Amino acid sequence: MQGGINMNKVQPKILPGFMELLPLDQILFNEMYDTIRSIYERYGFLPLDTPTIELSEVLLAKAGGETEQQIYRFNKGDNDLSLRFDLTVPLARYVAMNYNDLVFPFKRYQMSKVFRGERNQRGRFREFYQCDIDVIGNESLDTIYDAEMPAIIYEIFSKLDIGNFTIRISNRKILKGLINSLGLNNPADILRIIDKILKIGEASVKEELLKLGLTKNDIDAIMNLVLITGNPESVIKQLTALNIDNDLYKEGLNELIVVVDGLNSFGIKDRYKIDMTLVRGLDYYTGTVYETILDDYPELGSICGGGRYEDLATYYTDQKLPGIGISIGLTRLFFQLKDANIIKSDCNSAIKVLVIPFDKNSVSYSLNISSQLRNANINTDMYYIDNGIKQKLKYANRLNIPYVIIIGDEELKEKKVTLKDMISGEQEKLTIDEAINKLTT
Amino acid sequence: MQGGINMNKVQPKILPGFMELLPLDQILFNEMYDTIRSIYERYGFLPLDTPTIELSEVLLAKAGGETEQQIYRFNKGDNDLSLRFDLTVPLARYVAMNYNDLVFPFKRYQMSKVFRGERNQRGRFREFYQCDIDVIGNESLDTIYDAEMPAIIYEIFSKLDIGNFTIRISNRKILKGLINSLGLNNPADILRIIDKILKIGEASVKEELLKLGLTKNDIDAIMNLVLITGNPESVIKQLTALNIDNDLYKEGLNELIVVVDGLNSFGIKDRYKIDMTLVRGLDYYTGTVYETILDDYPELGSICGGGRYEDLATYYTDQKLPGIGISIGLTRLFFQLKDANIIKSDCNSAIKVLVIPFDKNSVSYSLNISSQLRNANINTDMYYIDNGIKQKLKYANRLNIPYVIIIGDEELKEKKVTLKDMISGEQEKLTIDEAINKLTT
Repeated sequence: MQGGINMNKVQPKILPGFMELLPLDQILFNEMYDTIRSIYERYGFLPLDTPTIELSEVLLAKAGGETEQQIYRFNKGDNDLSLRFDLTVPLARYVAMNYNDLVFPFKRYQMSKVFRGERNQRGRFREFYQCDIDVIGNESLDTIYDAEMPAIIYEIFSKLDIGNFTIRISNRKILKGLINSLGLNNPADILRIIDKILKIGEASVKEELLKLGLTKNDIDAIMNLVLITGNPESVIKQLTALNIDNDLYKEGLNELIVVVDGLNSFGIKDRYKIDMTLVRGLDYYTGTVYETILDDYPELGSICGGGRYEDLATYYTDQKLPGIGISIGLTRLFFQLKDANIIKSDCNSAIKVLVIPFDKNSVSYSLNISSQLRNANINTDMYYIDNGIKQKLKYANRLNIPYVIIIGDEELKEKKVTLKDMISGEQEKLTIDEAINKLTT
Repeated sequence: MQGGINMNKVQPKILPGFMELLPLDQILFNEMYDTIRSIYERYGFLPLDTPTIELSEVLLAKAGGETEQQIYRFNKGDNDLSLRFDLTVPLARYVAMNYNDLVFPFKRYQMSKVFRGERNQRGRFREFYQCDIDVIGNESLDTIYDAEMPAIIYEIFSKLDIGNFTIRISNRKILKGLINSLGLNNPADILRIIDKILKIGEASVKEELLKLGLTKNDIDAIMNLVLITGNPESVIKQLTALNIDNDLYKEGLNELIVVVDGLNSFGIKDRYKIDMTLVRGLDYYTGTVYETILDDYPELGSICGGGRYEDLATYYTDQKLPGIGISIGLTRLFFQLKDANIIKSDCNSAIKVLVIPFDKNSVSYSLNISSQLRNANINTDMYYIDNGIKQKLKYANRLNIPYVIIIGDEELKEKKVTLKDMISGEQEKLTIDEAINKLTT
């Protein structure tokens, strides 16, 4: 590291599939992160921060197939270790491990990075933030918690202000109950086909069900249910009118009614619909399920999904721990929103005001002014480089700082500051109290 | 996963050296984290979030010896990867990589986990949060930035409210300049011995210097400087009076004067001292250095340190990037503070109020009340389990929730709520607006 010695430099780069942002984008990302976090907290969820590295034996108790291949797994000393690939398995391990110390229903949020060594692909990330909430019951968990989730989704995407959205809600018991009532013995295959309806269309779904060996009558019965539309009350009326004599069906329908009633009580009447085409993934979910779509960008897919599961931690404990949760893949969402120009970082700043001493003489007074601004909870930067005023203002401009305070000889003498609005270009000479007042209102 | 099949459970556990907290402790930890973050932002630092995983070739460009052994390093596909072991190397890589897009001086904060596979030892962590700020100049960086760091340390530890603290400040150029002026050719060895003075005492330091081959006169000259005490102005006066004719010495002294003057301008007159025994680590730091001690718990060691360095990113770029920074090891600090009973989690809560429907009849109205409370920015939980009032209140007690709202038939009829103060035990029947008013003032 001695100067003069010719050194080979290492090219500074990061791996593909890892998001790293420039400051103004990072500020925007953090604003979204903070919004989600504050709403999770508003709804009474408690923070959790599990280790990034866990024992493979523990973390992979359930994994297999594709998941296992994607894991970052390695040895250190005698330990076989893995990086967490989601936040649900660590939650299961945490609840089983701390069962006696937790208060149930246990409501936790975790907003952390998870790691998956996926194939490199545009918009796919190997390290990304998941923003999860789950409510875990001890033995049982009231259905009313199923109504809380869409209320939270509603509030988050209203606050994020990224355009109109629709929360799709269904209950897997209803379709499963219908399939049972028809005496069909391959519900998983049927659900898998229904799940593709938005992608492949109604006709192809019918075709595939036919290939699977279903009769035309069975297919009609299924499509008849799946394609029910209308406002929530109307969908529930239609589902009731079908009069399916199956316990699972009735259970699912009753749960759906609780969710719709609950959303009514929360004052939420729009931005969600009951959509029986929504099946969502595999065996994990057992009741209510959700997905969220941006109305003007359906091609982005679901930006927030989740649902109800029977038992969180079978691999670790005999305690029955039913739960419900939702997840937002924030890294991917941020990438998509930026990519589609739905969000822009060109008009946000974490800094409210930049204090600029005109020259060396005014540095000391400028430090004092900065200190007073910060004491008034104003995010304040001071630019200390001894160069021209143009370059000083350029610093503020490039960081989108909306106000600058300039301090020269006059201001020093009069014990005032010149406050310049960087957007309008207007400036005025004020006392520090007047400036603080202007910057905080 | 079928019920009925006898499954072998995996024991849910985490690795030693990894901190994972119960909810009330996690709330306390997050409060500290948020306090530090908000002060970093108050001073105009911009957020950065680098990848957890980087290419080993890039991350270990500089590492060697002990550091390299501690790295979590592994292969995935064709890539040789490592987990970050600090936040400084990723910063260097980031600044070199994004040089043309950054605005200098570049002020960034990063508060993220870093990973070191250290030997297992009480109070030592293998995964821990570092909370770093750095200011990086392009070619040069004014000394006034050296004054900003202790001002930030001052504000953080005042806000954290963990007892009296002292920020020790020195400038390595001063002692180095003296050593140069004495014509001694092993300054690194001498600094290493001085660095131990708080641990081994004055006499042992003298002995070791003697063994190193220094004359009694040289040792006296060094100890004479090192043991200067007094308030900052007095120390500067004494350092000036020594009248050492060495450029490095004078440069260091002038920088120290800028720092003390700057702190005066910031209005900071206590909680710091100029301490020439502070040398701090190895060759990395080249000028101003800091450490912070809790006055009543000096055995905890430095809880926040840092300093000035000549060049951030020599391994990645030819651009000269001088900088100054500080770091708080939050995981370790939190552990120590808890361990010494300086902080306690038994009286904090992230939830302000718990809404309790007395029975099923009042659930719907309770949801509505919860919604109104949340719209007023009050962190609100609702307890939906249909059991006795005692158990409902126990939930609030165990989570330290300071207020509960109980809604029974009467409240329902009168469109009111019963607000109970969980600490005093007092309760009163209020309109929802009155309750919101009480909870927000």
